[in-house]
Amino acid sequence: MTELRVVAPDGIGEVRTGDDLAALLVDRLAEGLTDGPADGLADGLADGLADGDVVLVTSKVVSKAEGRVVRGTRDELLPAETARLVASRGPTRIVRTRQGLTLAAAGIDASNVEPGRVVLLPVDPDASARAIRSRLRELTGRNVAVVVTDTAGRAWREGQTDLAVGAAGLRVLEDFAGRRDDYGNDLVVTAPAVADELAGAAELAQGKLGGRPFAVIRGRADLVLPPEDDGPGAVALVRPDGADLFGYGAREAVLRALLGDPDDAAAFGAPSEVTELVEVVARVGGTARVDDDAVVVSGDVSPDSLQALAFAHGWLVDVPDAGEGVRLRPRRTSP
Amino acid sequence: MTELRVVAPDGIGEVRTGDDLAALLVDRLAEGLTDGPADGLADGLADGLADGDVVLVTSKVVSKAEGRVVRGTRDELLPAETARLVASRGPTRIVRTRQGLTLAAAGIDASNVEPGRVVLLPVDPDASARAIRSRLRELTGRNVAVVVTDTAGRAWREGQTDLAVGAAGLRVLEDFAGRRDDYGNDLVVTAPAVADELAGAAELAQGKLGGRPFAVIRGRADLVLPPEDDGPGAVALVRPDGADLFGYGAREAVLRALLGDPDDAAAFGAPSEVTELVEVVARVGGTARVDDDAVVVSGDVSPDSLQALAFAHGWLVDVPDAGEGVRLRPRRTSP
Repeated sequence: MTELRVVAPDGIGEVRTGDDLAALLVDRLAEGLTDGPADGLADGLADGLADGDVVLVTSKVVSKAEGRVVRGTRDELLPAETARLVASRGPTRIVRTRQGLTLAAAGIDASNVEPGRVVLLPVDPDASARAIRSRLRELTGRNVAVVVTDTAGRAWREGQTDLAVGAAGLRVLEDFAGRRDDYGNDLVVTAPAVADELAGAAELAQGKLGGRPFAVIRGRADLVLPPEDDGPGAVALVRPDGADLFGYGAREAVLRALLGDPDDAAAFGAPSEVTELVEVVARVGGTARVDDDAVVVSGDVSPDSLQALAFAHGWLVDVPDAGEGVRLRPRRTSP
Repeated sequence: MTELRVVAPDGIGEVRTGDDLAALLVDRLAEGLTDGPADGLADGLADGLADGDVVLVTSKVVSKAEGRVVRGTRDELLPAETARLVASRGPTRIVRTRQGLTLAAAGIDASNVEPGRVVLLPVDPDASARAIRSRLRELTGRNVAVVVTDTAGRAWREGQTDLAVGAAGLRVLEDFAGRRDDYGNDLVVTAPAVADELAGAAELAQGKLGGRPFAVIRGRADLVLPPEDDGPGAVALVRPDGADLFGYGAREAVLRALLGDPDDAAAFGAPSEVTELVEVVARVGGTARVDDDAVVVSGDVSPDSLQALAFAHGWLVDVPDAGEGVRLRPRRTSP
């Protein structure tokens, strides 16, 4: 029988710049001793933190404590947080951030913050995790791991899960290379991203409505490293740029291929697909004009390029009658 | 204080075709009452299953119970399990399965099974979950949710996490549309994929070495639907084909764009990128030959097409001297 316990204390007040997150958690756990558990399930963490616990904290309160709340909107702040554009459709921008994460809107968060302000990701979430781990050890004498979590959508899946954007003192990947199952089969390719699974488990107890930014997971002390070893950090979970099969959306891949300049992809994100299409046609040597429900292309654009552009935008190509320009038309459903 | 408990009983023996998984779990939990918990953490599930528990079971043992273990290798069985190829590099094939899942090798699993055999995904994992849920209710009188889990890699991230491939009686997405945070900000786009987070939490207790195919998660009874309602199933977590920004790898996007036929993408997966490149050049109207470390292209291929092909393969284009063919060369590092 293997058992994990996931505890998310509530009643954590608003976090402000300069707050000591480790102290907030430790104080709240101490109060919990007298409150007793709200749901009658168990006795919670009756002695506070223990060696081998994993402490999880949302990046939002880490950012707030580190003064990363700024006035402005996502759209205004996106360029400064973006290393490069990965994919773009309508108002959605999926970008690779300066931290190496691939996140919608660069992880800029407009929820659980005063209207008119947004929360940026911590500058170095692994460093944030290390600092909290060190402080928890100072306050409690316990050796725990710390994970800084954020929320991300996934390719091919609906909804979001929480994942680890920072980590300290944790084996973030459980590596089975060289291990065998009971039948003697090698388990070479299996490497559970346990830091991300811990983050998801924490979210189930924390929820999204605020007030429970911390979680403590007990039962996987085998993943926690000795106090002097902060481990590889969550950066070890980031696939290197260029090593990923999905480093670009389909549209961005084709546009890059046609335009030839790796930096050009960042230029795309125009509010209108029509505007973008007209611009791209011009850059590959043709002219385009908007006519009712179609973009009409003329000039020296190869059939391959037209087909590529149509695919990139999920549009249809109308074969023209003699003397007319080729018509590119949006499909009824978005790509 | 919100608390979850995740319990994975061990000592589940080998599962064979026709086994009653619900009975296996119920019997094992009953034995656990006399064994006591192995790790001294807590009293486990002292009264067996309770209303509102979520029961998770790996797709592997569901497949075994349903007779989906077959003789052969992944490569041999991949075509029959594949709806279409999403991306391919070297020996890796990421495909959309007939169940609508996007998984490496179509989820065909060669671990924890006799050598020479592989385990295919259940034909209809939501139906499998419904059957197990119904049987658990019959055996225990309890109203639980059931999740069938599998392991998947993620775009942009190292390692794998477990996710829900089947579900019954569960709100798989926790929808906050219309809800507001404490500041009055709308939470319109937040929809935690709780079924996937539950699957990841279960994996942390189950591990990968076999013997713990079940987990029970207690503490989120709010996600469990009434007995007569099996809910939308895990199929609701699958983004519809064509609605995804990452429905193709960068290479596959460009090849599809150049070749124009949506079904052509499935043709790619040749053992050698050189072979593939030569074939594609021929199909867009040129001729190609292999010369040392390059593919030399001549004939009527537009510069745009050459650039697109080079990008798709992560290769470089050498601008030719007069009279020579264009040379496409692989980069030192893989794309």
